Amino acid sequence: MKKSLIALALLSTSALADEGMWMPQQLPEIADKLKAAGLELDPASLTKLTEFPMGAVVSLGGCSASFVSPQGLVVTNHHCVYNSIAYNSTPENDLLANGFLAATMADEVAAAPGSRIYVTKAVENVTSQVIDGETAALTGKARVDAIENNYKEIVAACEEDEGHRCSVSSFYGGLEYYLIKQLEIKDVRLVHAPAEGVGKFGGDTDNWMWPRHTGDYSFYRAYVSPEGESAEFAEENVPYEPEFHLKISQDALDEGDFVMALGYPGRTNRHRLPSEVENTFAWSYPNTVKRFRDNLDIIAAQTANDKDAELKYASRVAGLNNYLKNRQGMLDSFANSDLLERKKAEHAALTEWVTQSAENRAVYAEDLQAIESLLAERQERDRSDYYRSLATPRLLGVAQALYKLSQEQTKPDAEREVGYQERDLPRYKAYMAGLDRSFDTSVEQALDFYNLKNYLQVPAAQRDAKFDAALGIQADMSDAELRELISSWYANTDLTELDTRNELLAAKPSQFADSQDVFVQAAVELFPQQEAEQDKSEELSGKIQEAYANYMKAKIAFMNEQGEAVYPDANSTLRVTYGTVTGRDHGTYDGTAWTAFTTLRGIQEKATGEGEFNAPQEQLDAIAAKDYGDYYVESLDSVPVNYLATLDITGGNSGSAVLNGKAELVGLAFDGTLDSIISDWDFNIDNTRSIQVDSRFMLWQMQHVDNADNLLKELGIE
Amino acid sequence: MKKSLIALALLSTSALADEGMWMPQQLPEIADKLKAAGLELDPASLTKLTEFPMGAVVSLGGCSASFVSPQGLVVTNHHCVYNSIAYNSTPENDLLANGFLAATMADEVAAAPGSRIYVTKAVENVTSQVIDGETAALTGKARVDAIENNYKEIVAACEEDEGHRCSVSSFYGGLEYYLIKQLEIKDVRLVHAPAEGVGKFGGDTDNWMWPRHTGDYSFYRAYVSPEGESAEFAEENVPYEPEFHLKISQDALDEGDFVMALGYPGRTNRHRLPSEVENTFAWSYPNTVKRFRDNLDIIAAQTANDKDAELKYASRVAGLNNYLKNRQGMLDSFANSDLLERKKAEHAALTEWVTQSAENRAVYAEDLQAIESLLAERQERDRSDYYRSLATPRLLGVAQALYKLSQEQTKPDAEREVGYQERDLPRYKAYMAGLDRSFDTSVEQALDFYNLKNYLQVPAAQRDAKFDAALGIQADMSDAELRELISSWYANTDLTELDTRNELLAAKPSQFADSQDVFVQAAVELFPQQEAEQDKSEELSGKIQEAYANYMKAKIAFMNEQGEAVYPDANSTLRVTYGTVTGRDHGTYDGTAWTAFTTLRGIQEKATGEGEFNAPQEQLDAIAAKDYGDYYVESLDSVPVNYLATLDITGGNSGSAVLNGKAELVGLAFDGTLDSIISDWDFNIDNTRSIQVDSRFMLWQMQHVDNADNLLKELGIE
Repeated sequence: MKKSLIALALLSTSALADEGMWMPQQLPEIADKLKAAGLELDPASLTKLTEFPMGAVVSLGGCSASFVSPQGLVVTNHHCVYNSIAYNSTPENDLLANGFLAATMADEVAAAPGSRIYVTKAVENVTSQVIDGETAALTGKARVDAIENNYKEIVAACEEDEGHRCSVSSFYGGLEYYLIKQLEIKDVRLVHAPAEGVGKFGGDTDNWMWPRHTGDYSFYRAYVSPEGESAEFAEENVPYEPEFHLKISQDALDEGDFVMALGYPGRTNRHRLPSEVENTFAWSYPNTVKRFRDNLDIIAAQTANDKDAELKYASRVAGLNNYLKNRQGMLDSFANSDLLERKKAEHAALTEWVTQSAENRAVYAEDLQAIESLLAERQERDRSDYYRSLATPRLLGVAQALYKLSQEQTKPDAEREVGYQERDLPRYKAYMAGLDRSFDTSVEQALDFYNLKNYLQVPAAQRDAKFDAALGIQADMSDAELRELISSWYANTDLTELDTRNELLAAKPSQFADSQDVFVQAAVELFPQQEAEQDKSEELSGKIQEAYANYMKAKIAFMNEQGEAVYPDANSTLRVTYGTVTGRDHGTYDGTAWTAFTTLRGIQEKATGEGEFNAPQEQLDAIAAKDYGDYYVESLDSVPVNYLATLDITGGNSGSAVLNGKAELVGLAFDGTLDSIISDWDFNIDNTRSIQVDSRFMLWQMQHVDNADNLLKELGIE
Repeated sequence: MKKSLIALALLSTSALADEGMWMPQQLPEIADKLKAAGLELDPASLTKLTEFPMGAVVSLGGCSASFVSPQGLVVTNHHCVYNSIAYNSTPENDLLANGFLAATMADEVAAAPGSRIYVTKAVENVTSQVIDGETAALTGKARVDAIENNYKEIVAACEEDEGHRCSVSSFYGGLEYYLIKQLEIKDVRLVHAPAEGVGKFGGDTDNWMWPRHTGDYSFYRAYVSPEGESAEFAEENVPYEPEFHLKISQDALDEGDFVMALGYPGRTNRHRLPSEVENTFAWSYPNTVKRFRDNLDIIAAQTANDKDAELKYASRVAGLNNYLKNRQGMLDSFANSDLLERKKAEHAALTEWVTQSAENRAVYAEDLQAIESLLAERQERDRSDYYRSLATPRLLGVAQALYKLSQEQTKPDAEREVGYQERDLPRYKAYMAGLDRSFDTSVEQALDFYNLKNYLQVPAAQRDAKFDAALGIQADMSDAELRELISSWYANTDLTELDTRNELLAAKPSQFADSQDVFVQAAVELFPQQEAEQDKSEELSGKIQEAYANYMKAKIAFMNEQGEAVYPDANSTLRVTYGTVTGRDHGTYDGTAWTAFTTLRGIQEKATGEGEFNAPQEQLDAIAAKDYGDYYVESLDSVPVNYLATLDITGGNSGSAVLNGKAELVGLAFDGTLDSIISDWDFNIDNTRSIQVDSRFMLWQMQHVDNADNLLKELGIE
C-alpha cells in the first residue's frame, strides 16, 4: 500500500497512450502500439480512405464530422454548425436559444452560405511532381513560382473530375507534398441542434475547462443533385448516400478504454525551431492576446443594447473568446514549462548529429545554418505586416481582395495565383453575400478607432507611409480627428452594400480605378506596393522552403536512427490519433484530481436558469426524475455527459468521430483542457486531455428531452 | 484496462480501513485488522495508558493534544489554543494576526484563564460500583440520585490524590461506567502559534472543506510547581516532565499508508434509536441552524465598526460558524442518505432477534418497548426547554448558575449536586473572570431582542409563564416595548461587573434574595420551578438509563453473535481510530476527485493578501523561492500541507496526534470534510475523510518561515 494508486492510473495510461497525429498510411508503422493499446481492427484497414471506417469521415473545412446514416446524415459539434444556427435565427425565432429539430427532411433548412461537406476520396504523394527536377534547381521567388505552377497543374488535372475540390498540402515543412481529392458537397442542411443551453452549456466560462458538461453535438445532412452529383442548394436535391457510415456503439465505454479520433487537425508546431518558439511566445501571442481582449470589450460595449448587432457579432465574439483563452492558456503553460530549453537542447543534439558525420554534414549542414537567418528575416517582415494589418479596416480588406481578384482575372485561369482562380470564386461570392450578417458600421468604426490609435503608437519607421497616405492617416492626429477620418470613410464607401460588392466581383481593374469609393481607391493605390511586398515575401519563402525541408529531412533521419517514427505537423489533412479514456491525477486546484467522466449531476450543479448555464427546464426535469432510460451507467450512478481522453487533437479536430477499438462511435471530440493547449507546440501526456461529448449523452438528450425520435430511428437506435 | 483505476484506489482502502473509535483496552479484539492495516507495534502496547505511546496523549478539555518533548511541550491545533492567543492579543499587539513565538521559556505567556492539560493516569471499569445491587433495584429519580451518589463517592476517593481530576463516564448509553483519573495541569502557557494567515488559513470559507491548506498547529507548555505537583500559574513553576513524549517521524508518509489517531472524541450518536434520528434531523438541527445563522448576522452588524467588540466575539463567531457549517452539512448529507430507513431496518432486525427467542424476550423485550415512549416524553420536555433557553439572556444564565451554586454550597460538599462541588469552583471563577473578554452589552441586547421576538412567536402553551413573569415579558409587546424592557434589564444589573460576580460567587442564598439586581431577582424567583423541573427530568432520566442500558446490552449481544466487535459512542474519553491516507474518487464537483495531499502550491493559488486567505508574505516568498529544505516530496514536487485519511474522528479529536505504523507523529487531525460530518450518526467510508496538517508542513513553516529554531531543537529536529 506504499504506492499511490491514483498515480498508478496515470502510469498505466502513459504506458499505453502515445502522442501523434498520424497520417492514415503511417499506421502500419505503429501497428504494434495500436494493438497493444486496444485497437481490435487491423491497423491496415484504417489506411484505406475509401473503405470503412475512414470513408465515413468528412471535413467541414475547419471542423471534422462523419456520416452516421445511409441518408447522408452528418454528426459534428454544435459549435461547428453555430453559424448555420445563427444564420437561421431571428430575434423572433431564436434557434440558438431554443434549438432546432427538423421533423421531416422537408423541414431541414439551408446551412449558412458557404457551408461545405468535403469527402476525402484520394490522397496521393506528389512530392516528385511539386519539386520536380527543374524546380529543385531553383531558389527564392523562382522556386516558389515553380512550386505554385506545379500545384496548379496538379490541382487542375484533379478537378477535371467535376464536383471535386483538390488541393496540394505540404508536409514536414515542405519536405513532402500530397494531393488531396475531395468530393465537395455544396447543399448542406441543418437537421438538428440542441438548445444553446445544452450545445453550448457552460459557454466561455467552461470553454477549455474541466469538469465539463457541454452537449456539443449537432446534425447536418449532405444533399446532391438527383443524379447524385455535387450541386448548389436546390429543392429537388436528394440526400447524399455515402458508401460508409459510422454506427453508434451500444457497448459500455469505461475509464481505461482505447479510443481513437479521426479528423482534420488544423495546425500544430511540434517541429518548429527554437527561434520560432521564442518569437511566438515572447512576441506574437502576447500581442494577440492584448488585441483580442480589447476588441471583445469594444464589441460588447457597442452591441450592449442592440440585439440585432449582438447576433451579428455572436459568432465572432465566440471565436475571439475561444482564441483568447487558447492563447492565454498557451502563454501560462509556456511560462511553467521548459519547452524552449528542451527545444534548444534537441536542436543542439540534431546539430551535433549533423556535424559529427562528414556524410550528414555534406547533406544538411548548410541548410541547418541558413534556416536560422532566413527565419530571423521573416520575423522582421511579419512584424511590419502585423502593424499594417492591425490598422486595416475590414472593408479595405474586402476592397483589396476584390481588386486583387480582378487583377488576377485578367490572366488565363491557369496562370493566376492560387486562391484567385475560377474555382475560388464561389468562396468569394459566399463571403460577399454573408458579410451583412456579421457587419455593423458602428461596431466596425469603434474597432477601427482602437486599431488606428494603436497603430499610431508604432514608431514611424515601422509604419507604412504609403498606407498612411492612402487612408489619410497622420502621425499627430487627435482622437477627434481620427474619429472624423474614420467616419468620413464610411460616408464615402458603398462596400456596405451587397450590390456594390457583387458588381466589383465581376468588375475589371479599370472600373476599380474609376471608383470614388474611399476603400476601393485605397486598394488601387496600395496595389503596386502590395505586389512588390509579395514578391519580396515569396523570394524569402522560396529560400525558407528549401532550407526548412532539408532541416526536416535531417530531423526525420536523426529520429528514425533512434527508432522513432515521425508524424508530420497537423495541416488540416485527415489524421488518426489514439489514446485512452482517463482522468488526471492533478486537477484544476491543488489537492484535486479529474475523473474521466462527468454526469448529469454536474448539469444540475451548474444550472442557473440563465446565461451560459441555462440548462433547459425539460432537461433538468428529466434529470430530477432520474429518467435515465438505457443510458444509465451504474458505476457513475447517472448518465455520462463528457469524458476525458489522452487523444492528441487540436483545432480542426472539433467534431471528430471518436471510436472504440471496434470502430464504433463513442463520442465527438470538441475541446481540450486549458493546459493541453500548449500541446500544439509541445505534447505533454501528464497534462494533455481531450474532451469528448459521450454518444450516450447525445442519445439520452435526443430521446429523453428533445424527442428526436425520427433521427434516433435513422441512427438505428430503437 | 476495463477497470477504473481510480475506483480501485477506493476499493483497496475500503478493504483496509474500518470505522470505529475504540477504547484502548478493546484493541486486542481487532488486533488482526490493525496488523493487516499496517500497525507495526503490538496492538496490546496501545492498551497501556501509562506507557508509550498512550502516555504522551493528553486532553485540553474539548481538544486533544500530546507531549512532544521531555520538557512538557504540547502540540495541538491552532484552533484549540485560539482563545489563549486572543486572550494575549490587543489591538496594538495582535498575536492572532502576527503569530507568537516565545524566544525562551521565560517569554512564554499564560494561556487563557481556565486552560488545562489533563494527563490520563488510569481508566477503571466501575460499573459494579455505580450500579451496585441497591441501585439496580431502584428506578426514576431515586435511581439517578443513587447513581450520582455513587459517582461522587468514587470521584471523591479518587481525588484524594491531590492535583488530580477524576470523573466517571458512561459508556454504551449507561450500560458501563469507567472512572477516569487525570493529572490536572493548571499552569498552561502559550509557546508558539503561527500567524492566523497560516493557522487559520482559509478561515470559515475553507472550514470543513477540501482542498485545504491550513497550518492548524500550535504549542503549549505544561508547568508544575518546583516540587512537580499540579499548581496554579506561578513564576517559580517549572516545566512538567512527562514520562513519555511522541517523536516526529522522519520517514515519508505516502498515499495508502496506515495512520491512527489518538485523542478524545467528544460525542457520536451511532447507537441512537430511529426516533432519536428522526427528531434530530427533522426538528433540532433545522431550528439550530436558523438560530445560529441569525445570531451571526446580528453579531456582525453590531461589531462592524468596533474592533474591540469584534475581538471579544471572535471566538464565539468562529464557534457559531463552525457549528453552522457542521449542522447544515449534516442536514444535506441526511437528505441524500437512507440513514433513517437503515436505522429502522436495523432496529427491526434487533427487535426480531429479541422476539424470536424466549430467553432474549425475557431479558430485553420490556425495555426495548419502554425506551420508545420514554424517548418521546423526553423530546417533548426538550422542546419546552429549548424555547425557554432560547429566551434566556446570557446574564440571567450567569445569575442562575451563581444562585444554584450558592444553594448547593449550603450542603456538605459530598451531598451537593455534581458540578457544584468544591472541585468545580475554580471553573466558575475562571468563567466569571473571563466573561468581560467575550461580553459586550450592545451585542447582547441585540441578541436578546432577536431571541425574545422568536420566543414570543411560540404558542403561549409552550412558553413558560413563570419565566415570562419573572422577566416582565408580555405576549403582545411591540418591538419598542421589547427593546425598552431589555434596555431596562441592563440598566438594573451589576453582573457586567467582575466584582459583583466575584462577590456572588461567595454569597449566601439570603444575599441573593436581598439583591436588587434584575437578573439575580429573576434567578431567585425561578429557582423553585427550576428545581422541580429538574426533579421531573431526573425521574425520566432514571427510567431512560435503565431501559437504554438494556437496549444497548441487547444490541451488543446481537452484534457479537454476528462476529462484530462493538465500540461505544464517543464520550470525550481516550480513543484510538485507525485508517489509511487516501483521497477520494469523487470530489466537491462532478467530474473531479480529491487527491490525498495538498501542497504549498495551493497556498499560492489561494493567497489573496487579505481576509481569510492572508498568507504571510515571508511564507509566500519562501514558496516562490522553492525554499523547501528537507521537506520536499518528489512525487508532489512540493512540500505537503494537509492530507486526507479515513480516520473515524469527531469534534474533540481536534489536535489528536496522528501516528504512523511505528507510532511516530505524522500530523495532527483538525477537521473532517463536510460530507463526513454525518458520520457522527452514520459512518460512510465512501465519503468520510479526516483532514490532517502534515508534520512536514509544521516543521517547514517553523524552520523556513517562522525561524522557530529553539523549538525545532527541542523537538529533536536538527
